[in-house]
Amino acid sequence: MNNSQEPNQTNKEQSLQKKGYRPRRSKAKVPQRNRNIGNGYSNGKPTVSFIPLGGVGEVGKNMSVIEYGDDIIVIDAGVKFPGEELLGIDLVIPDISYLVQRVDKIRGIFLTHGHEDHIGALPFVLKQIQVPVYGTKLTLGLVKNKLTEHGLIREAQLHEITADDVVNAGPFQVEFFRVNHSIPDGIGIAIRTPVGLIVHSGDFKLDQTPVDDKVLEFNKLARYGDEGVMLFICDSTNVERQGYTPSERTVGDTFRAVFAKTDSRIIIATFASNVHRIQQVINTAAEFNRKVAVVGRSMVTVVDVSQQLGYLSIPKGMLIELEEVDKLPDHQVTIITTGSQGEPMAALTRMATNNHRQIAIRQGDTVVISATPIPGNEKLVSRTIDNLFRIGADVVYKEVANVHVSGHAAQQEIKLMLNFLRPRYVIPFHGEYRHQATFAKLAQTMGIPDERCIRCNIGERVELNMENAMITGTVDSGSIMVDGIGVGDVGNIVLRDRHHLAHDGVVIAVVTINKEDGTILAGPDLVSRGFVFVREAGDLLGEAKSRVRDALNQKTGKTTEWSILKNLIRDTLNEYFYQKTKRRPIVLPIIMEI
Amino acid sequence: MNNSQEPNQTNKEQSLQKKGYRPRRSKAKVPQRNRNIGNGYSNGKPTVSFIPLGGVGEVGKNMSVIEYGDDIIVIDAGVKFPGEELLGIDLVIPDISYLVQRVDKIRGIFLTHGHEDHIGALPFVLKQIQVPVYGTKLTLGLVKNKLTEHGLIREAQLHEITADDVVNAGPFQVEFFRVNHSIPDGIGIAIRTPVGLIVHSGDFKLDQTPVDDKVLEFNKLARYGDEGVMLFICDSTNVERQGYTPSERTVGDTFRAVFAKTDSRIIIATFASNVHRIQQVINTAAEFNRKVAVVGRSMVTVVDVSQQLGYLSIPKGMLIELEEVDKLPDHQVTIITTGSQGEPMAALTRMATNNHRQIAIRQGDTVVISATPIPGNEKLVSRTIDNLFRIGADVVYKEVANVHVSGHAAQQEIKLMLNFLRPRYVIPFHGEYRHQATFAKLAQTMGIPDERCIRCNIGERVELNMENAMITGTVDSGSIMVDGIGVGDVGNIVLRDRHHLAHDGVVIAVVTINKEDGTILAGPDLVSRGFVFVREAGDLLGEAKSRVRDALNQKTGKTTEWSILKNLIRDTLNEYFYQKTKRRPIVLPIIMEI
Repeated sequence: MNNSQEPNQTNKEQSLQKKGYRPRRSKAKVPQRNRNIGNGYSNGKPTVSFIPLGGVGEVGKNMSVIEYGDDIIVIDAGVKFPGEELLGIDLVIPDISYLVQRVDKIRGIFLTHGHEDHIGALPFVLKQIQVPVYGTKLTLGLVKNKLTEHGLIREAQLHEITADDVVNAGPFQVEFFRVNHSIPDGIGIAIRTPVGLIVHSGDFKLDQTPVDDKVLEFNKLARYGDEGVMLFICDSTNVERQGYTPSERTVGDTFRAVFAKTDSRIIIATFASNVHRIQQVINTAAEFNRKVAVVGRSMVTVVDVSQQLGYLSIPKGMLIELEEVDKLPDHQVTIITTGSQGEPMAALTRMATNNHRQIAIRQGDTVVISATPIPGNEKLVSRTIDNLFRIGADVVYKEVANVHVSGHAAQQEIKLMLNFLRPRYVIPFHGEYRHQATFAKLAQTMGIPDERCIRCNIGERVELNMENAMITGTVDSGSIMVDGIGVGDVGNIVLRDRHHLAHDGVVIAVVTINKEDGTILAGPDLVSRGFVFVREAGDLLGEAKSRVRDALNQKTGKTTEWSILKNLIRDTLNEYFYQKTKRRPIVLPIIMEI
Repeated sequence: MNNSQEPNQTNKEQSLQKKGYRPRRSKAKVPQRNRNIGNGYSNGKPTVSFIPLGGVGEVGKNMSVIEYGDDIIVIDAGVKFPGEELLGIDLVIPDISYLVQRVDKIRGIFLTHGHEDHIGALPFVLKQIQVPVYGTKLTLGLVKNKLTEHGLIREAQLHEITADDVVNAGPFQVEFFRVNHSIPDGIGIAIRTPVGLIVHSGDFKLDQTPVDDKVLEFNKLARYGDEGVMLFICDSTNVERQGYTPSERTVGDTFRAVFAKTDSRIIIATFASNVHRIQQVINTAAEFNRKVAVVGRSMVTVVDVSQQLGYLSIPKGMLIELEEVDKLPDHQVTIITTGSQGEPMAALTRMATNNHRQIAIRQGDTVVISATPIPGNEKLVSRTIDNLFRIGADVVYKEVANVHVSGHAAQQEIKLMLNFLRPRYVIPFHGEYRHQATFAKLAQTMGIPDERCIRCNIGERVELNMENAMITGTVDSGSIMVDGIGVGDVGNIVLRDRHHLAHDGVVIAVVTINKEDGTILAGPDLVSRGFVFVREAGDLLGEAKSRVRDALNQKTGKTTEWSILKNLIRDTLNEYFYQKTKRRPIVLPIIMEI
């Protein structure tokens, strides 16, 4: 024991060590490159930084930086889908100023898997920094598709890797291990650094009976544990859930029960990226002699890409075009579709409201919503379910059947991972603060003291030497909002205005005055939107107009100062409207001078 | 069997009847008042109408009308809280035009219990129709409070009833039976009508061990069943859930476990109206020698009213003022508060963000969120939980403990109710369409054929004679939106504008022209809100302005027609903005003439 070097070590840890817990030391060597003491070193010891640019304290826009001296590698580049409070915003991406300023140092972006919250920001990132991108076959397949759409495919430097490859990226030796998740070909990443092994779980669960038979690579994890892990960055999404996350195959059992029960058409909505789920639909359809049509833009894309790359095995003649559905008897029809989140423009939503160009849900159809609502989507999903019931469809959904399992590890799986790796430090990732805090408690029960479970915020630099890790500062970071093709031109002021407009509407008051003495030449005119129904409120606006006129007339000849007249109009209208309606529309006075 | 009178009877029903199902006939007599054939009679048979004005196909704004000839009674008058899609709307209430036009016929409004979705619309209703209101002691206590706030208490005709009273309201004999629910003093209503018994469950669950020891009155239900029930209107909120809803007491067990575990302050957030829950907090606090402070406007109101009326039993000296909390050691402090739904202005939300005037959550506090999020509130609740974790509070919530039970009956309780009453017809109430449809399936398994489970929409008139029930038409009905003090002045057009404003903002283009030839005298000026951040977008608006000027100049001398010039401005800006930003702000052209 070397307690003198452990300033943070607690009595509790000491007693845990007595019970058998042994923090491991990394055996990785400091590379023999000739460096000045300075960046990369602290007190003569080499230091590596881990900096999350997204994905901590939130679920979404995952992106992390690992830096040593003049070298940087990046893990993932994801987007986040905005909550309803971000009015009109399409996407949120990480602020990568820190990387843009250090583009020459970047050795590559390593992708863990093909979900949007891990690859979705790539087009925006690669527009700013042209760096190599590493990913497995399916992940790159989806990336290529995305970059092609953005016209970025030609200059992209994409490197396909397998879980068995090793990539030397500057001083970093990057290895991979296969994990189970709700999309195939997901990996975790193990990085040998000058201060020891850093392991990033990616998004994972442990599926003992995965649909593609590829179980998480225990063997590598066990080896890393023996080697000694300095830092483990771990998926914490489901850390609140006890036990194990069920196998994806359990959903297949539900599908079989549904198919066995009906001779009508079967429509299944799920996440486009859940290729294993789609495979299970196809397998079940084959078993029951049904054909399968695929609907919804993202579903069609994923099925195409996965099939081409060998991640989806579809019997010949099984896939049919949507146009052919009506030529088949109902008991031979299966439709796989998007819309499991009730998204207004998605295929199922349209089919359920008779707004789809080609197909509509009919009475007697069986519709399976093979998903749970992502927080914030509950009402949309509920509306779709209601619409389906109204049509007379037989709806199979979360409340009444086992139609979905998560892709993230629950407590027992996280514990297993911690026991494999026995990390010196852990960083709970891919979770809100509550998940980070709950993770810390769980880790404590495994002998990892609270101070070694680092709950960091976006942009915080966690510095690691061969002994310790600590937060030493912050870097430029944050959220960039994407609205239409504008990236970053909508900020808090615009959003605040949108909220205000959304709540109470806007009233514009225009008046043209003589610039010499302020005499009113035209107006005042009032125009409103989103405030009151004008036909009902004619008197309200008429009276408001004459109040503005009176107020301005009192100032005639006294001032032509714009700001004074504007404030006068604003105050007059604010007061009057609040008194009459208890609402506060945005009042915009516009004064024109001649 | 009298099948000739049963045009709707199916083979299925016949076979169910063979299995033992026997629709009962009502023994109620047609009252001997001398009526003309006409309203109230159909084909010589008396007909009673049941008309829901709210609460079917939705959860919220419960209100029903029962009509016979010249007499009407009303059950409940509730509000609905708007979803986020109803931008800026404070409340939604039922459209009661039908009642306003028939005010002389109304014999009374009967309230089942004191929840907002059953009594919240009373102030708006009583402003339009002055009619007697019947309710139990606690229900009226809460109603009085509400009417006092609205300045309506003096003219209100409030009649307190107990579950054992009988009210003769025109031809209707109105009885009551006690139910269990998440507020005390809830009742169901049984109405003897000229066509037989109509039973309305109110909101109910069956709690075998209720906190106030008052179990649902089985005996009366059994008696109604023997008498014969023509129509049963049944709470269907939880019809998707199998089994029984657990007893409220199970939450008390959780409280005891929490109190036993900590010596720090305990803060419990729950629904203000859940008096039994509050009683359990008080009981547990007493057991552990803690005092209780009450925070949050609605919580203070309910505790006051319930204590005064004897529904809350609080040991002397147990309640303390919030100011006294800091004088007590932590292990003697319990705080009951609002904010279990993460509502931005509620006490817990403020305490968790250090925005409460008197008290803030501290590290080490134990906070129990004794509620589940109402659909749509998930993100708000999640944000509050996250804030509490950040402070370092120990948070006990739905995902990790049994902190809440529902107040509504699950499948087994609904089945029991159907077996007690053996109704000829049922109307699933208090549910979305999916609940109505699921209820119909459940009822079928109990021998009630599909066509006797009437899934009606708001405003549909269900006509009952002594044999049959059917939907025969619709009455004026719908939703009225309340915004500020405006009732009904925000309609779909205003809402559509608010959505548009919320999504893309607004751009106003003003120009003053010479009314003779259209020469521009001042402007064009552009003002925007919620569109782009102007400092970033200076060029965008500058260029847009010159495009408008160019377009107008081409028309100089050719037209001064407002509509043409306005369209010109609108088209010019729409096209330019979409091209540059892929956004579509509301463009408001304003032309002033001199």
